[in-house]
Amino acid sequence: VAAADSVIADLTALVGADVVVAPDAHNVARHTRDYCVQGDPDVGLLALTYPRETRHVSAILRYCNERRIAVQPQGGMTGLSGGAVPMAPCVVVALERMRAIRELDPASGTITVEAGVVMEAVQKAADAADLFFPLDLGGRGSCQIGGNISTNAGGNRVLRFGMARDLVLGIEAVLADGTVIDALRKVIKNNTGYDLRQLFIGSEGTLGIVTAAVLRLSPKPRSACTGFCAVADYAAVMELLARVRTGFASQLTAFEVLWPEFYATGTSALGRRPPLELDSGIGVLIETLGTDASSDLERFERVIGAAIEAGIVQDAIIAKSQRETTELWSVRDSPGEWQRAGHWPQLSFDVSVPTGEIGALVSEIRVELARRWPGLSALYFGHVADGNLHVSVGMAGHAIPEFEIEAALYKLLARRRGSVSAEHGIGSLKKPFLHFSRSPAELELMRTVKRAMDPNGILNPGKIFD
Amino acid sequence: VAAADSVIADLTALVGADVVVAPDAHNVARHTRDYCVQGDPDVGLLALTYPRETRHVSAILRYCNERRIAVQPQGGMTGLSGGAVPMAPCVVVALERMRAIRELDPASGTITVEAGVVMEAVQKAADAADLFFPLDLGGRGSCQIGGNISTNAGGNRVLRFGMARDLVLGIEAVLADGTVIDALRKVIKNNTGYDLRQLFIGSEGTLGIVTAAVLRLSPKPRSACTGFCAVADYAAVMELLARVRTGFASQLTAFEVLWPEFYATGTSALGRRPPLELDSGIGVLIETLGTDASSDLERFERVIGAAIEAGIVQDAIIAKSQRETTELWSVRDSPGEWQRAGHWPQLSFDVSVPTGEIGALVSEIRVELARRWPGLSALYFGHVADGNLHVSVGMAGHAIPEFEIEAALYKLLARRRGSVSAEHGIGSLKKPFLHFSRSPAELELMRTVKRAMDPNGILNPGKIFD
Repeated sequence: VAAADSVIADLTALVGADVVVAPDAHNVARHTRDYCVQGDPDVGLLALTYPRETRHVSAILRYCNERRIAVQPQGGMTGLSGGAVPMAPCVVVALERMRAIRELDPASGTITVEAGVVMEAVQKAADAADLFFPLDLGGRGSCQIGGNISTNAGGNRVLRFGMARDLVLGIEAVLADGTVIDALRKVIKNNTGYDLRQLFIGSEGTLGIVTAAVLRLSPKPRSACTGFCAVADYAAVMELLARVRTGFASQLTAFEVLWPEFYATGTSALGRRPPLELDSGIGVLIETLGTDASSDLERFERVIGAAIEAGIVQDAIIAKSQRETTELWSVRDSPGEWQRAGHWPQLSFDVSVPTGEIGALVSEIRVELARRWPGLSALYFGHVADGNLHVSVGMAGHAIPEFEIEAALYKLLARRRGSVSAEHGIGSLKKPFLHFSRSPAELELMRTVKRAMDPNGILNPGKIFD
Repeated sequence: VAAADSVIADLTALVGADVVVAPDAHNVARHTRDYCVQGDPDVGLLALTYPRETRHVSAILRYCNERRIAVQPQGGMTGLSGGAVPMAPCVVVALERMRAIRELDPASGTITVEAGVVMEAVQKAADAADLFFPLDLGGRGSCQIGGNISTNAGGNRVLRFGMARDLVLGIEAVLADGTVIDALRKVIKNNTGYDLRQLFIGSEGTLGIVTAAVLRLSPKPRSACTGFCAVADYAAVMELLARVRTGFASQLTAFEVLWPEFYATGTSALGRRPPLELDSGIGVLIETLGTDASSDLERFERVIGAAIEAGIVQDAIIAKSQRETTELWSVRDSPGEWQRAGHWPQLSFDVSVPTGEIGALVSEIRVELARRWPGLSALYFGHVADGNLHVSVGMAGHAIPEFEIEAALYKLLARRRGSVSAEHGIGSLKKPFLHFSRSPAELELMRTVKRAMDPNGILNPGKIFD
């Protein structure tokens, strides 16, 4: 391990004193934890660097690569798997000062931003140009585009607009040896050799550091419709999904399924009567975004009405105002309030399996938990049209090792070729479970790519796989 | 170079006599040419192989890799850049017998197919299940899914549904050393390490051979609207695009722009009066696909009508029948008839630049052609919402070296960071021009990936880059 003093002196000489900060007892805290993982502040940070330009990132990486010094790329530190939390002595490269919005091009429908731009700033810039940046998630006020790209962030509108991967037209990234890959193109179609963007999207900073990107914008939606339906079981959920897919096509932006345990805990935590009584049934929250308020609402009512007449939907509410819309989303948005209903602390899962199999998976998890740990409660909620299921196991009053519960659930998932991490990535937290979702041949190919692009293993070491 | 006799004997022993065929004067023709490139039938094919199972592909590749024998993957041979045409002695691996449709899962909206399945067969299977496989192009009756994936095919509906890359959920591919990567998952969200699919999509068979895939299906569109508008200039094209993007959002499926030279040649070749008189103006063909025939048509008329009132559109026709729809598409679909208008042979280009810059690029090309080769005629047509421009230079009566015209056009393009191949790939034909679209650092990174995944360079040698 290099001496921190000399690293700071060398880097300062390379990129300037305003870019390099010596770690101390006060400034390391925010660089050693994310939303889920509390790392070790004494892990041995050699230097904190805050590049303002791509050439700074390049110089820092070249220096570290030549000396085999580990580098920890960091964005808004809002990750949920420890992907940006240092695990060994390293130089931190925090992109937060690279926050220029370089260009918004309405004709191309693109915005070109540096990696440190906060997601919400992109949303606002698009909005000001009467356009729409669809990527959205809870951390929007803190998370940075570089991190969103490096983790292939998903969030609230994946069903209609895709994940971060689908929104990146061009990219600029710095390789381990300092080489700058400038692929900041605004073209949609570009079949000229390998699609190098893909190496950096979702690879959690292990193959390069994203410094800027060209992002796709969409027309701003002009109307939204929201409805909440009660159905009897998962078979009815699937029948309803087939109808709304056909009826709304690409205007369908949310299809959120709330199982009874989730609904009961959510309404209890909110402390008021739920929008709809569900009893033992399943709740489905449906949203469309369209271009025409009157005809969109009319069609929404027609499609849901037909599902009621066909006996698929038992009861439904369609929002007629923003207040009613918020009310319909309230139970879905209740997880932050669960402590009030005694469901805290929780062990939460973000998994995916094919859409048609989610109902069966929920049943299997219920059976497995009841068999092995009677009394353990779990809540189920899913963006099921995306194949994405969230499970929250209430850990209050239990001393069950989390690892055992995780291994039990992931085993059920693996049989259905599911993903142990639909959105949150692997980082350090999910490394022990990666093999449930990826074969040895796949892991070996990942290592082949890693070795080729980062032969000295300096980039975000210890993450995804060893 | 290995002796053909021993290769055939060895491969026959490995995978069976029904998979291996000795090349002869009759059977090599269809394996040595695509739609654009006529290769050398005497290039020295060592064996023709027609695997029926993934393990056959694996065994053939392992054998060839150990002996440094080149391998030529082949699909329907409908490519336009020579990507599947052998350039040196090799073993041909033709996927045409791997044509099983393994599963169609309506709940997940997926179809799992082997690489040799013809595109049209996927479309028909989806249609029979009341679903829709949106990938579509002229070669639909011959091209195979493996080739579509390996070339990241685009085609008629990219604007709404994306290219092949956007439709591949899961993949199975065989690496150079015979390792089978089975990532045939039906999940949409899967942030578990590197997205290995991307290594095989669009890499033209140079990093592995795709043997099967899970493809995304969409709800079947219920209504289509088609209109043809005359506008004064490219500024008006952009104003119209902004309006239809906002008005139709994701229902917009075609925005085809026909410059006057194209329109004149097309109508002349068809030998009948055009749907609309354009004079010096530009024609724009607009299509939407939606869910509701009556309200969709009403909105279509309202949006186009408003563009007329605003003075953006000078004149417009909206199709009221299938016959009228076909009539509106006729000029756009006329290139096959151009010979009748004397525009033949042609030198054609498939390029892209940012949408807002296409008008300026067309002007620059006109000026450059007129300056250097007065009398050379060129036609312009583009999927401009995708940033994609097609240029067809009429070569009749000219002895200008094609390479000079190509270099001149690509130089103009490179200044705007465009793509020398929007859809058709690089193959062998566009190799000399790749550097106009990709930087030395990008090319070096491509080579790094190639060396890591195919260290002996056996897969599709001589394509994309040297």
